[in-house]
Amino acid sequence: MDSSGKWLLESVYPDLNVMLKISEVFYSGNTQFQHVEIVGSELFGRSLVLDGKTQSTERDEHIYHESLVHPAMAIHGHPETVFIAGGGEGGTLREVLAHKAVEKAVMVDLDPDVVNLCRQYLPNHHQGSFEDQRTTLIHQDARGFLLETNDIFDVMIMDLVDPLEGGTAGLLYTEEYYRIAKSRLKPDGILVTQSGPAGLLSFQECFTTIVNTLSQVFDCAVPYHAHVPSFQTLWGFTLASDADLRAKLDDGNLDAVLLGRLNKQLKFYDDITHKNMFALPRFLRDGMRDENRTNTDADPVFMV
Amino acid sequence: MDSSGKWLLESVYPDLNVMLKISEVFYSGNTQFQHVEIVGSELFGRSLVLDGKTQSTERDEHIYHESLVHPAMAIHGHPETVFIAGGGEGGTLREVLAHKAVEKAVMVDLDPDVVNLCRQYLPNHHQGSFEDQRTTLIHQDARGFLLETNDIFDVMIMDLVDPLEGGTAGLLYTEEYYRIAKSRLKPDGILVTQSGPAGLLSFQECFTTIVNTLSQVFDCAVPYHAHVPSFQTLWGFTLASDADLRAKLDDGNLDAVLLGRLNKQLKFYDDITHKNMFALPRFLRDGMRDENRTNTDADPVFMV
Amino acid sequence: MDSSGKWLLESVYPDLNVMLKISEVFYSGNTQFQHVEIVGSELFGRSLVLDGKTQSTERDEHIYHESLVHPAMAIHGHPETVFIAGGGEGGTLREVLAHKAVEKAVMVDLDPDVVNLCRQYLPNHHQGSFEDQRTTLIHQDARGFLLETNDIFDVMIMDLVDPLEGGTAGLLYTEEYYRIAKSRLKPDGILVTQSGPAGLLSFQECFTTIVNTLSQVFDCAVPYHAHVPSFQTLWGFTLASDADLRAKLDDGNLDAVLLGRLNKQLKFYDDITHKNMFALPRFLRDGMRDENRTNTDADPVFMV
Amino acid sequence: MDSSGKWLLESVYPDLNVMLKISEVFYSGNTQFQHVEIVGSELFGRSLVLDGKTQSTERDEHIYHESLVHPAMAIHGHPETVFIAGGGEGGTLREVLAHKAVEKAVMVDLDPDVVNLCRQYLPNHHQGSFEDQRTTLIHQDARGFLLETNDIFDVMIMDLVDPLEGGTAGLLYTEEYYRIAKSRLKPDGILVTQSGPAGLLSFQECFTTIVNTLSQVFDCAVPYHAHVPSFQTLWGFTLASDADLRAKLDDGNLDAVLLGRLNKQLKFYDDITHKNMFALPRFLRDGMRDENRTNTDADPVFMV
Repeated sequence: MDSSGKWLLESVYPDLNVMLKISEVFYSGNTQFQHVEIVGSELFGRSLVLDGKTQSTERDEHIYHESLVHPAMAIHGHPETVFIAGGGEGGTLREVLAHKAVEKAVMVDLDPDVVNLCRQYLPNHHQGSFEDQRTTLIHQDARGFLLETNDIFDVMIMDLVDPLEGGTAGLLYTEEYYRIAKSRLKPDGILVTQSGPAGLLSFQECFTTIVNTLSQVFDCAVPYHAHVPSFQTLWGFTLASDADLRAKLDDGNLDAVLLGRLNKQLKFYDDITHKNMFALPRFLRDGMRDENRTNTDADPVFMV
Repeated sequence: MDSSGKWLLESVYPDLNVMLKISEVFYSGNTQFQHVEIVGSELFGRSLVLDGKTQSTERDEHIYHESLVHPAMAIHGHPETVFIAGGGEGGTLREVLAHKAVEKAVMVDLDPDVVNLCRQYLPNHHQGSFEDQRTTLIHQDARGFLLETNDIFDVMIMDLVDPLEGGTAGLLYTEEYYRIAKSRLKPDGILVTQSGPAGLLSFQECFTTIVNTLSQVFDCAVPYHAHVPSFQTLWGFTLASDADLRAKLDDGNLDAVLLGRLNKQLKFYDDITHKNMFALPRFLRDGMRDENRTNTDADPVFMV
Repeated sequence: MDSSGKWLLESVYPDLNVMLKISEVFYSGNTQFQHVEIVGSELFGRSLVLDGKTQSTERDEHIYHESLVHPAMAIHGHPETVFIAGGGEGGTLREVLAHKAVEKAVMVDLDPDVVNLCRQYLPNHHQGSFEDQRTTLIHQDARGFLLETNDIFDVMIMDLVDPLEGGTAGLLYTEEYYRIAKSRLKPDGILVTQSGPAGLLSFQECFTTIVNTLSQVFDCAVPYHAHVPSFQTLWGFTLASDADLRAKLDDGNLDAVLLGRLNKQLKFYDDITHKNMFALPRFLRDGMRDENRTNTDADPVFMV
Repeated sequence: MDSSGKWLLESVYPDLNVMLKISEVFYSGNTQFQHVEIVGSELFGRSLVLDGKTQSTERDEHIYHESLVHPAMAIHGHPETVFIAGGGEGGTLREVLAHKAVEKAVMVDLDPDVVNLCRQYLPNHHQGSFEDQRTTLIHQDARGFLLETNDIFDVMIMDLVDPLEGGTAGLLYTEEYYRIAKSRLKPDGILVTQSGPAGLLSFQECFTTIVNTLSQVFDCAVPYHAHVPSFQTLWGFTLASDADLRAKLDDGNLDAVLLGRLNKQLKFYDDITHKNMFALPRFLRDGMRDENRTNTDADPVFMV
């Protein structure tokens, strides 16, 4: 019977689970911080799953990682120093390093075990990025690192797990955290964060709140989205800066800009995809207009 | 235990099923043509499921139906006569009738039982559209009807089940069918068809082929897409006409146009959503460029 | 794909669910007391499910109902008056009425809605037993009824849902309840109760405790078991009496005895099946020896 | 959510799957002959799964292995030489070697990879039996071995996978195979084979046919059964011999006999369990009476 075998169940919404037939379990265990699964499936290739949530898969991680990294990098004139919070798979690091301007990429991921497991089992994700001379890898809480460091960055990329109650990133989406981050960002620098699900059924969980929170801290916060198949829904991202991002985002000359700046060809992101990402469906615009919650350390908004 | 209870399983991709917890089964049975389920869930409200495939749900049917109907209606100057193939729930009919210009809407759905079940169990879908004076409801194969009718239409909307082998709509996506349809379309008329899944993992199943096939028959075929949560992926649509659609699609004045033409407020479709829908992600543009299959009666492309 | 469709999930053990493909949902709703599902499947025919637990199915209810009723009835010399607690499907009543000696069967089921739904949807279960002249049907809590009634019974049959916390039968397995029941039992009368799962993985949940509790109240308590496929495990029952049951149980002449006493042919229970039922696997005998819990009103044992 | 995580689905009957939450996958891959999974779960400990079918689990393998081995060994006066076909986990071998009379145990398992995986991952199954001086382990098709060997055995134990079409044991349940086996059995020797599911819903798949086939080859064929929780149903076994087994099976003195003969204490099998195993429920006796199929090489009966 077709349904016999090993399946990974993941709750996408209350009352809706996705069942993925898996062929291999490369790793399953607990680190000091979280539960880790690295599984293989015909459909998605290798997937990283943290605390029951799929983080990325070989088949479609390029959509997520290109969407997270390249808008900020493209509209920044000359990103030399880049900060990455999280990003254990190395996919975000890989995309950052594709920008020839980058001289230093500092990746701060809390969990050395996750990074080591990804280095071992997800070679198609990191593609050797951890060995790049420009990479500095630090295992520390991102917030603690930013409080202590003297570094100042052109671009800061928050590639964190979702803000789950009791999770490792609950206090990495708050107003206080963003103020700390901003203190390490150059005046014209750009911060971007993954911002949780942005589909009709779940955008209220954290997406609109993250956008709202960033708006309290930066002059300009611009949400965007992409459909990531293994997340089973639209996914949200937010750019934030004190610089005026809107004009640059509408520039329409991205393909030419990126051609000169990258040392590789992208698979997902280009000028038309960019237009798609920044033209939000009406329910997201309505949702942002109606959103009045702000994430604070004292009262963070968690995903259900 | 949370997982106890009734669940609807639906295969979205090979090796990936979605499990939806259902609270009610309003109807489950076979008509002359297909298997029908009308189920209720906390997440989606009432869903219509034909031959195991979710057709629409109360929670998000407006995304699908607005996306299918309004682009064609909006860029047509004055749609008076509209043809609908399929559309048993009445949601497409409802959106068509929202256009004040419409004088006659002819809906041809093969299966009277499905329509009657929808009239009984899906009142929030049709909202009385079947009783509208402008509606003509005919139960016949759409192809047979178009061969026989003398009517000529401004807009033709194909709201059909996917082209599954052995399904009811296998021959309603072929070049021959589109030529028949075109013969009943006014010279400046517009045809639109739902075109199957358009996400990274499944756009090759039928989406790009449908676009390609329409390109053989019409001077202009323009694909677009929207994320429909209950379909678990991006969904494809295609406009086709001998008129030049591109200029009208880029007009950018849709909100004002629709405001005057509609007798109600839309929930999903507006000018910015429109921009989103027509800015296709790169993989779809690449997929269309590489597509060389054409659906013909002798060699139709079926979804897996 | 084979797995598409409606499935009933039921937790059998922690970490183990059974998925049954269902073709029909005859009823799904809440009564005053419990959640009721009556579903149909190819495998089991029609099933009654209360609060998420399968109570009986057309395909194998004869195993459960014959096992519950006939040992007590067979070893009783001449059962004229029979009390049934629960038994909403009417299957226990049906088996009781098959004994020609029975003059009066008093069935006390708390929930009139369940009984009415079973009368409507489970005709193959009750087979008209509710219309039998000898039947008295009362909707009341069994314990309340027994406290009030003046009736005295030859055989008392407890066909109750499992003792779940918050369920309708939590206090119908306690020492105090059994003392009340005994007060309405003739001196040589026999009580029997369904006693929950009796397989290796779950006999400790309530089976051994029920046996132990009955041993506190009656001179003789004899457990037995049968495999009921739709319960996915061995199922326990317990006979209790102040009479010496052992000699009668080992008599070995059951087939002849029943032939004369029944107005129909049984499908499951006969002399050799009886031997099987009363020869318990070692783990159950060990489990009973080691059991020292007693169900009391103040400290009832609930199933997990 | 509780249902998130890795689950093993196994089809038990058409339209009924069991979902077991698994915590670890020790091995998953294909040998030359079959697909092998060794998984761990809270409920069952470590399970061996071949071609999608659970073969045994740490939690309840003693029920299966004691049931398979000890009836034949107990009623044989002095089993010195024992043949085992299959039995890759080493559990059958372990139970055989518990008999002090055994001088030589020849285990012939087709698949060296399965045996090596079991040696590595299932230490609680084999408990070192493969290192016992009395053990001879051969990797060959059992049928081929029996045709070639000069050995003659007191007891022959067929611990094979079920007769599935295309499986490794399809021709190890046929009349021809049993004649070959009998040729290597001493005149008073006893053969026993696992005989597939024996519950109400599936005994017709192969159980009654195996019994019938053995009856064609031996003067005496005696079926018996036990409930194995991880198989989700009653399980069948059949003893066969030209000696008269019935008298010995009814002897009633097993506990004393085994006490003297075994070098360990059993957990499941004893005199009363024995009575249970050999007192078959009526549907199995009716099923055997009505069975007229015989497994032959030309027309084997396969499980569905």
